[in-house]
Amino acid sequence: MGIGTELLMGELTDTNSAWIASRLPALGIELQWVSIIGDDLPRLTEAFKRGMERSDIIFTTGGLGPTQDDLTREAIAAAFGETPTIQQEVVDGLERYFAARGTPMPSHNIKQANLIPSAKFVPNPNGTAPGWWAERGGKIIICMPGPPAENRSMWEEQVEPQLAELIEDEVTITRNIKTMGMSEGAVDEIVSEFFGIENPYLGIYSKADGIHLRIIARAKDTETAQSMIIPVEQAIHDRLGEYVWGYDDETPETAAGKSLIEKGLTLAVMEMCTGGALTNNITNVPDSLTYFKGGTVAYDSAALTAYGVPADVMEKHGVVSQQTANAMAETARQTLNANIGVAVTGVPGPGEFEGKPLGLAYISVTNGKQTREMEMRLPPRRVTIKRRVPNQALIELRRLVEEIG
Amino acid sequence: MGIGTELLMGELTDTNSAWIASRLPALGIELQWVSIIGDDLPRLTEAFKRGMERSDIIFTTGGLGPTQDDLTREAIAAAFGETPTIQQEVVDGLERYFAARGTPMPSHNIKQANLIPSAKFVPNPNGTAPGWWAERGGKIIICMPGPPAENRSMWEEQVEPQLAELIEDEVTITRNIKTMGMSEGAVDEIVSEFFGIENPYLGIYSKADGIHLRIIARAKDTETAQSMIIPVEQAIHDRLGEYVWGYDDETPETAAGKSLIEKGLTLAVMEMCTGGALTNNITNVPDSLTYFKGGTVAYDSAALTAYGVPADVMEKHGVVSQQTANAMAETARQTLNANIGVAVTGVPGPGEFEGKPLGLAYISVTNGKQTREMEMRLPPRRVTIKRRVPNQALIELRRLVEEIG
Repeated sequence: MGIGTELLMGELTDTNSAWIASRLPALGIELQWVSIIGDDLPRLTEAFKRGMERSDIIFTTGGLGPTQDDLTREAIAAAFGETPTIQQEVVDGLERYFAARGTPMPSHNIKQANLIPSAKFVPNPNGTAPGWWAERGGKIIICMPGPPAENRSMWEEQVEPQLAELIEDEVTITRNIKTMGMSEGAVDEIVSEFFGIENPYLGIYSKADGIHLRIIARAKDTETAQSMIIPVEQAIHDRLGEYVWGYDDETPETAAGKSLIEKGLTLAVMEMCTGGALTNNITNVPDSLTYFKGGTVAYDSAALTAYGVPADVMEKHGVVSQQTANAMAETARQTLNANIGVAVTGVPGPGEFEGKPLGLAYISVTNGKQTREMEMRLPPRRVTIKRRVPNQALIELRRLVEEIG
Repeated sequence: MGIGTELLMGELTDTNSAWIASRLPALGIELQWVSIIGDDLPRLTEAFKRGMERSDIIFTTGGLGPTQDDLTREAIAAAFGETPTIQQEVVDGLERYFAARGTPMPSHNIKQANLIPSAKFVPNPNGTAPGWWAERGGKIIICMPGPPAENRSMWEEQVEPQLAELIEDEVTITRNIKTMGMSEGAVDEIVSEFFGIENPYLGIYSKADGIHLRIIARAKDTETAQSMIIPVEQAIHDRLGEYVWGYDDETPETAAGKSLIEKGLTLAVMEMCTGGALTNNITNVPDSLTYFKGGTVAYDSAALTAYGVPADVMEKHGVVSQQTANAMAETARQTLNANIGVAVTGVPGPGEFEGKPLGLAYISVTNGKQTREMEMRLPPRRVTIKRRVPNQALIELRRLVEEIG
């Protein structure tokens, strides 16, 4: 439950809930529902009541600050029908916190020392707002502060260890298999017999970097959960192996980077329609300095010529052509003396370019001997082109690096 | 309502809800609650029933795809007690969509042609999933696809205009004033007398592109709301004018692009530590083709030399220096025969570079005569550097273009 009116005004995106969500499967906790609610006492109280009917554990972030808008504690007290009282030892702690910063405690902060009989405090070494751990009728409510730096360390140092002690009986393991080159409907058909089974569960997701298949298995221990995943993963491999490009948290740029590092190869780039998006993705990888040499972005044939692409290839085939993509990849490679050159050309938009439609793009990856080529036809939107063409180019790059052995 | 198990597994952060939330105040719609729910029919159905008790309008994103997991349509049908039927004209449209991509329609996609009597389709030119607009008992449910590129254009082109016709009694106007160069605390002090007033409301937000001040006024009509905003905006201008670089939806790249177009100037770029992020931001602007010529990204001095930066400047001052930034900007400008060159050099990470610390960066913008220089010292994190240095460089670019008159 994300708490705070600023989350409802679209001023702040609730990233806490997704972060907590990502930590739950390993604890064997199934997340059923996320709510984002404003600083409104009746609505928050209703949410706690409804949540306790529906779930065993409720996590909240936000609404623990010192202002009148911070109502998480008050809403739990109302939902439980209990009266909060000030805890002197927490007041003393708050006074020490402010004294260490050379200012007296603002009087508003005293409300952070409130507690109800069914709750205990969770210490917060990184801020003034202590967390709450409340239990009633077998249900648990765990309240953490809103700032990510505060709730993440509270989670890791205190909440997760205490939860792990409570929940021992089940382990959840997930395996994410990422494919590119087949439509969602086609992948769905090929592995359809595995859908609709509760454990191991198979989910299918369409992403900018292809179709992902996610296997989730629950069991008493890691080994058993693993053994439930293996046959499904094997079947997916047998049927879709050539389309698989990565696993779990891998992205096209980390997968390509890993292959380049393994083979000790270096990379140079030249892009047209993607306008720097490909290079930007490559350099998001912390290790990219070890294999990425540099790249150029050109928006017209004059700039491409200035960067060394032979003018006669562009004159003969057009800037947006497979031949120009190939010449760009080879030029990038030679200019920076890299092992591999990757290039993308296409229509940058907003409209046509040399009579060719927005959405058309060509990819080329070369090591000077072998070359992978690809034509793409995408929906005519700049954001789609800038998101999907770099992913495809990086997956082709990885495939070439794997091929050259 | 964000729909999709992947949102609950922490694989994907629901950014759609925050985006929709940001569009609602201007329509006079108060957002009460956001829920994120998995691909689970009973839970989704309950959410629609509960939501219709609580609110007049429900927006959903996700769950409109072709797979068995996509259950938004089914849940609304269940909540309404209606039976979906296949609409042949939508089947025909889907078949054309796939034919244009050279493949037959996978049989699973047919479920996207389902409709109930209380709903109509909202066309989706950017994907296979049409939206739904359902009405019953005075309540409205509007369903959009999950991919941001698809739901944002559906919102702007179809949902928002139709909603604006329905909702007429109160107008909310917002004015967002964006500054760079002063700390949040300093800005807060300078305009403190305007805080704490309900209407017009003034909010202050610290973002990667500086400190934003947002004025929100509510009134019976646009003119009255505007007249409430003007005095606050004027006061902000009088006190902070030199730090203001943009308004409302402007980004550093759109503001810089607007200035370049007004003056009829062209641009070339050279980047080091930002690894393509600056060029990528520039080319996110649809009109960038009219002023952006191209750019280079180099990760070492050999690549900078290959791209024409004089080796003696780098030898004397180091790659990470103001002098090298200036040489890069001028080289970029001359290589592509552009009016303005902008360059960034700095430590790319993960560790030190030439004995200089991660987080140090230099910006240079030049038209060959005048040059703006800047040194930045940021927290030592790649994502922070790639997000904040390009913004600052673009704001400096805009300032130079405004200066040269």
